Amino acid sequence: MQKSGFNIAIIGLGLMGGSLAYALHGFKDGTVTGFDTDIATLKLALEREAIGRAAASLREAVTGADLTIFCSSPNSIIKNMRQSLPYFKQDSVVTDICGIKKDILAFVRENFPPHIDYVGLHPMAGKEVSGFENADTELFKNAGFILVLSDNCKESSVGLLKELSSYVGAGRIAINHADDHDALIAYTSDLMHIAATALCADYPENITMAHAAGAFRDCTRIACIDADLWTELLIGNSGNIVPYLSGYIQNLTAFRNALKSGDKEFIHAFLRKASDNKAKMLTL
Amino acid sequence: MQKSGFNIAIIGLGLMGGSLAYALHGFKDGTVTGFDTDIATLKLALEREAIGRAAASLREAVTGADLTIFCSSPNSIIKNMRQSLPYFKQDSVVTDICGIKKDILAFVRENFPPHIDYVGLHPMAGKEVSGFENADTELFKNAGFILVLSDNCKESSVGLLKELSSYVGAGRIAINHADDHDALIAYTSDLMHIAATALCADYPENITMAHAAGAFRDCTRIACIDADLWTELLIGNSGNIVPYLSGYIQNLTAFRNALKSGDKEFIHAFLRKASDNKAKMLTL
Repeated sequence: MQKSGFNIAIIGLGLMGGSLAYALHGFKDGTVTGFDTDIATLKLALEREAIGRAAASLREAVTGADLTIFCSSPNSIIKNMRQSLPYFKQDSVVTDICGIKKDILAFVRENFPPHIDYVGLHPMAGKEVSGFENADTELFKNAGFILVLSDNCKESSVGLLKELSSYVGAGRIAINHADDHDALIAYTSDLMHIAATALCADYPENITMAHAAGAFRDCTRIACIDADLWTELLIGNSGNIVPYLSGYIQNLTAFRNALKSGDKEFIHAFLRKASDNKAKMLTL
Repeated sequence: MQKSGFNIAIIGLGLMGGSLAYALHGFKDGTVTGFDTDIATLKLALEREAIGRAAASLREAVTGADLTIFCSSPNSIIKNMRQSLPYFKQDSVVTDICGIKKDILAFVRENFPPHIDYVGLHPMAGKEVSGFENADTELFKNAGFILVLSDNCKESSVGLLKELSSYVGAGRIAINHADDHDALIAYTSDLMHIAATALCADYPENITMAHAAGAFRDCTRIACIDADLWTELLIGNSGNIVPYLSGYIQNLTAFRNALKSGDKEFIHAFLRKASDNKAKMLTL
């Protein structure tokens, strides 16, 4: 049974869904209903009071929810949305925390009835560990939040998601259309994950952590990666990633050639430009 | 005038020399004498009590020192060592904090008299900002320290530098010959700095920091780089860096091609291996 107040459904209680559940305690004096296909996770989320109610099915979770937040893996979000379509409450709002939005927006455009409003959400937060056991109410503190607009979404729905973002701790909130979102994420997130994992593809045999400082620690932190999730994310956004990755390879190749030929001027100018660019980006 | 106790000379009071000066307070009940060609820096270091005594010249700093630590830029270290040769105290120990050791070791081998003992030191610590104003007594806390052996260096000199490393906060201490040191650093430090700066060579026009999370922050932190210093370091170690950088480019290219062709298996295996490697390295 839903309570009479504001009902929130969270579908998928991994790191992101679990952290949102914790962080949304008290939001609009509402109740959070959770659903996860993993029964142990669902039980744990209820025991730890991340969620106020555990739903026995997707249908039960979605029914009566004023706001449904899909937090499962990218590939399963659309499947779950499709299965939920008959049960969404009239005039309710649907969102998701997926890191790629193009396919979801296309699905929404083709399938959502006019009385259900979709606005995408992408909290720019994460950890190099996953699962509900790592969920953390502080995960979103000062994080950027990107709201992704669907065609004709209502101002009130955008307002609700802005309110939610601020409530869970958002630092900056950006509003984008799906294409712009996916293209920007290809740089700020996807390219960084590829660069970091490739740094760990090979390493010197005789390395010890006595030889490693903050440069190694920070550049490779996210190489501890959820390979299942990130294979989906990277394949799903490959059209946007490939140009950035090709540009990165070109820049590295030019740098390598300058090192080989001892071209100090090129190397100095390259480092100087990178440093200036980084400083500029921090102000944007 | 030197005091009668253990005298330490620090040549170059930038981020590293300044931080060492602070961190060495009380080491062997000694006095730290500082020298810097920048008079304002030298004055500030004395005012802030980073150093106990400001030397008016390199000669004055080195004269009577039981331990001389060269902390200036890589290119100037050898020059300063050469100028100091006539003034080193009999049976004193000389070290430096340079990130590349091959050339220094070659200089030592050819020029140091038998009564002066050299052992190189490389504290694996730094910041993305430089200069004495950023010097920090905590900089070396839990950092890896690499001691680099010269031919026939005395056990007691190695012991002194181990003691010093522990005193300023070393986490792990490794002992290497110069060639091994430089080859390992090419991976743990140089390659990381190249990867991070190349990530900032180009960026999307419409980026804002609302679109950036920890992945961007950590992978590009060290792109705020001292271009003068790092041009020297990277050119000086290019023979060791080029093979790692070429391997990095090859791995990225293979990944890019897999993304283009939608080869999920390759991508999954690549991410999985990187994640496993990163986990392994953390235990070494």
